Amino acid sequence: MPPAELGGSVSSVDTPALLVDLNAFEANMAQVHRHAKDSGVAVRSHAKAHKSVDIALMQIAAGAIGVCCQKASEAQVFVQAGVKNVLISNEIYGTSKADRVARLAKHAQVAICVDALVQVDQLANAASKHKACIEIYIEIDLGHGRCGVTDGQSALQLARAIASHSPQLKLAGLHAYRGSAQHVRDPSERKNAFDQALEKLKVIISLLKSNGHTIITVTGGGTGTYELEAGSGVYTEVQPGSYVLMDADYALNKPDANMPALQHALFGLCTVMSVCQTHAVLDGGLKAFAVDSGLPKMVLPGWTVKSMSDEHMVITAAPGVEPLQIGDKVRLIPGHCDPTVNLHDWLIATRGQVVEQIWPVSARGALF
Amino acid sequence: MPPAELGGSVSSVDTPALLVDLNAFEANMAQVHRHAKDSGVAVRSHAKAHKSVDIALMQIAAGAIGVCCQKASEAQVFVQAGVKNVLISNEIYGTSKADRVARLAKHAQVAICVDALVQVDQLANAASKHKACIEIYIEIDLGHGRCGVTDGQSALQLARAIASHSPQLKLAGLHAYRGSAQHVRDPSERKNAFDQALEKLKVIISLLKSNGHTIITVTGGGTGTYELEAGSGVYTEVQPGSYVLMDADYALNKPDANMPALQHALFGLCTVMSVCQTHAVLDGGLKAFAVDSGLPKMVLPGWTVKSMSDEHMVITAAPGVEPLQIGDKVRLIPGHCDPTVNLHDWLIATRGQVVEQIWPVSARGALF
Repeated sequence: MPPAELGGSVSSVDTPALLVDLNAFEANMAQVHRHAKDSGVAVRSHAKAHKSVDIALMQIAAGAIGVCCQKASEAQVFVQAGVKNVLISNEIYGTSKADRVARLAKHAQVAICVDALVQVDQLANAASKHKACIEIYIEIDLGHGRCGVTDGQSALQLARAIASHSPQLKLAGLHAYRGSAQHVRDPSERKNAFDQALEKLKVIISLLKSNGHTIITVTGGGTGTYELEAGSGVYTEVQPGSYVLMDADYALNKPDANMPALQHALFGLCTVMSVCQTHAVLDGGLKAFAVDSGLPKMVLPGWTVKSMSDEHMVITAAPGVEPLQIGDKVRLIPGHCDPTVNLHDWLIATRGQVVEQIWPVSARGALF
Repeated sequence: MPPAELGGSVSSVDTPALLVDLNAFEANMAQVHRHAKDSGVAVRSHAKAHKSVDIALMQIAAGAIGVCCQKASEAQVFVQAGVKNVLISNEIYGTSKADRVARLAKHAQVAICVDALVQVDQLANAASKHKACIEIYIEIDLGHGRCGVTDGQSALQLARAIASHSPQLKLAGLHAYRGSAQHVRDPSERKNAFDQALEKLKVIISLLKSNGHTIITVTGGGTGTYELEAGSGVYTEVQPGSYVLMDADYALNKPDANMPALQHALFGLCTVMSVCQTHAVLDGGLKAFAVDSGLPKMVLPGWTVKSMSDEHMVITAAPGVEPLQIGDKVRLIPGHCDPTVNLHDWLIATRGQVVEQIWPVSARGALF
C-alpha cells in the first residue's frame, strides 16, 4: 500500500518516503529534451535511474525515442508496460538471459550491447530459437575501464560476427558511455576528457565504415556530459537518466556557463522519532537511502547528517539553530538517486504541498 | 520468479543472487543459541538482518523466544506469518504507525520501545482504540548516541507514564542495545566498554525497582557482543541478528578466545560478463550489494573488488593469478548483510552444490 493518498497533503505522507517535486522534474525534463532537440540528437532516457513505468512514458511523451535499461529483467518491465523501444545498455551472459531478450524482441524494438564473441553467439542462438531480431550495439570503452572493447580491430571482429548472424542480429551502432566522466566537476576538464575520447571513437567508426559496416546510431552520454555528446557531431543519441531527479552527487558538478543547473526533484521525507540535547534521530537509514556517493544532505538549514545505521539517521544542528521536535518531518537530498530509488516501492509526486501522483517503482529489484 | 530451482545445481542459479550456505547457517545458529541457553538468557533473533519468515521460524524452532523487528510494517510481515512474539526494537511516531502496532498486538505478543512521553501517549491511544495491550520497553542509551534516554529520572518518568496507561500499556522492561559496540574489533576493548555501560544500566534498574516498577526483561546485545550481555547477570535476553548469515564487517571482529568464530553463511553469486587484460566485470553492483561497510570481498584467492557502479563490479587479479573467463561464476562476501539482503527478493539456501531451499525475503522494503 503506498504511503500517501492522491490529493492528500505532503505532511500526511508516511515516512520514510521518496518525494518527486513535479515542478522541478518537469523543468529538468523540458530543459534536457529541448537541448537535445536543438542539437539534433535523440534522447533515450535511462530508466535505471527511476525504474518507473510512469516516468518512462512521460519521457517518451516529452520526446524521448525510448529508454535504456541495464538488465534484461528491467527491460521486460518496460516492454510489458508498452515501451516500444528499449536498449539494454549492458552485456549479458547465459541462455536464460539471452532467451529473455529474444522473447522481448518479438514485442518491441529491443537492442543490447556486446563486447565479446560469446555474447554474440548466445544472442544469435536465442534470436534464432525465438524467431526474433535483436539489435546489437558494440560497446566501446573510451577510458571508463569497465565493459567494452578498446580498439578498432576488436570492434571490427564483433561487427563481422554480428553480420554473419543476419537477420537474427542486426548491428545498430556503437555504445560508448563514459560513466567516470559524468562526475568530473569542472566543465572544462569534462570537455578536455571528452574531446580525447571522441578522437578515439572517430577512428573506430572510420574503420568499421571503411569495412562496409553501417553505423546508424552512436549512443552514450549521461546527465553529467550529455551536452558534450549532443554537440559532438558524432553521437546521434544521448542517455541521461538522473536528469529528471538529480541528487547530491550530481549537484557537485559545476554547470556549463551556458546551461542552467538542473534542479533537485527527488527528496527523501523522514520523521523525527527521537530527540535529545546533542542530536535528533530520523526514521530512515541505510534501507531508505543509498550511501555509495555519500550521506544524504538535510534541506533544513543548519542541520547535518552525522551518521546512519540500517533504520536510523542521526542529525545534528549548528550552534544556535532551533531544535527539532519529535514528529517533525524533514526533507533530504539523496547522495545517489539510482540505488536510492531502488530501495523504495513508491515515488510520491508532489506539487507544492499536494500529492498529485503516486508512481510504483515498477522495476525495483529487477536484478537479472 | 526465484533465480533458482529446488534441487538444482548452484551453477544454474541466475545472477546476481544471494546464497545461504546451510551448513554454516545451522552451525552458527546452534552455537549462539547453545551459548545463550547455557548462560540462562533468552534469544530473540533480530529479523531485520534476514527479513525472512522461513529463517525466523527456524530460529524459533531452534529455541528463540521470538524475533525483533525494526519497523511496524516489518513486524506485520512476521505476525501475519505466525510469529507470536515480536519486539519492535525501535521508536515510532504517528497515528498510522501506532494503529498498526495496536492491531498487531491483538494477534500476537507485540512490544515496542519508547524514549519520549509523546510516544507513550500515541501508543496508549492506539491500544485503547483497538482494545489491545501493547508491551513497552524503555530504551536506554548506554553511549550509542542514537535513540534512548540517558538517565534514570527520564526512565522513571516514562515508567510512570506507562503505568498510568495500564492495562492498555504494560512495562515489559528495558531495551539497551549498543550498536556501536558491536564492531569494536578487540574482545578486551569490547569487554571494557561493556562493563562501564553495564554499571550505568544497573543504576537505572535500581531506581526503577525502588520506585515500584517491575523490570521483567532487559534486552539488547547483537552478534558482536551477545556473549557479554549473556554473561552479565543483568540482561535476560539477547538480540543477535547477523549471527546466522555473517558478513565481511563482522568477520573483522576478533573472536573471544573461548568462542569459535562464526562462519560466513551469506554469499553473493555473480557471473563474469566482460573481461579484458586489466580486469573482469561482474553482473552485480550497488543494487545487489550494500557498500556502507565497505566493498564485498571476493572468495576466489588473488582477486579483489576494485570498484562498483549501479549494476557492475570491476574486479582485478594479483600478478600471476589465472584469469577469469566470461560466464564464470564467482562468490563474494557482502560487506554488511542487513542492507544487502534488503536488495534481494530471494535467498537461495544451498548445501554443497545443491539448491535445498528457496526463501523469499518476505519483509524486503518494509520501511514504515
